[in-house]
Amino acid sequence: MSAEAAVNEFIRQVVAKDLEGAAALVSDDLEYDNVPFGKNHGPEELKTFLGQMVSGFDEVEFIIHRQTCTGNVVMNERTDRFRSGEKWIDLPVAGVFEVDADGKISLWRDYFDMATFTSQMSG
Amino acid sequence: MSAEAAVNEFIRQVVAKDLEGAAALVSDDLEYDNVPFGKNHGPEELKTFLGQMVSGFDEVEFIIHRQTCTGNVVMNERTDRFRSGEKWIDLPVAGVFEVDADGKISLWRDYFDMATFTSQMSG
Repeated sequence: MSAEAAVNEFIRQVVAKDLEGAAALVSDDLEYDNVPFGKNHGPEELKTFLGQMVSGFDEVEFIIHRQTCTGNVVMNERTDRFRSGEKWIDLPVAGVFEVDADGKISLWRDYFDMATFTSQMSG
Repeated sequence: MSAEAAVNEFIRQVVAKDLEGAAALVSDDLEYDNVPFGKNHGPEELKTFLGQMVSGFDEVEFIIHRQTCTGNVVMNERTDRFRSGEKWIDLPVAGVFEVDADGKISLWRDYFDMATFTSQMSG
């Protein structure tokens, strides 16, 4: 499986809220960095953080606008969308992924503006 | 010149504070989007925005951690650094660039956390 295919499959699991499925696709030494929030490490911390994220919303959607891949590094430009009842929150994000030699995600780092998220949460 | 070479050369001009040199490398319909701040369009608005940015600092440095390229799209993960006197501000950034058929930069969009910048400016 190519690095890009690994990332695409991982994102499918995340937006499907399949935490076990997502965790099965990452390495034991995963670094999961939500830049303004800070870092999580490994599959268990991934499940905890993602669990909090997806359990608070009725639906999660990642719209990928552009995706680039060089070697084992994949980057994408996205709008991550979170639905609560009839309200959608839209968050512009740029993500960086690294895929290790076993085809596991070893890095996931997302860049976004925290205030863009929090202002919609409270709005 | 490859898309990646065009982006590398453009960044060299920006950090060298050569506004005319940078503007010569972009298309007339450039979209320059600092996501939390908003968009600028075309070489003149690029020069105005960059001019305000670089004139306020004694030194500007972009450290590129990762860079990926697919077709005419280049993405990179950077730490943009701004020096004022002896104080450095470090800003984690993910950038998206598109290069048109003439080798000109037609899109430059940077994702970052506004508060990470402003808290260091006032700190």
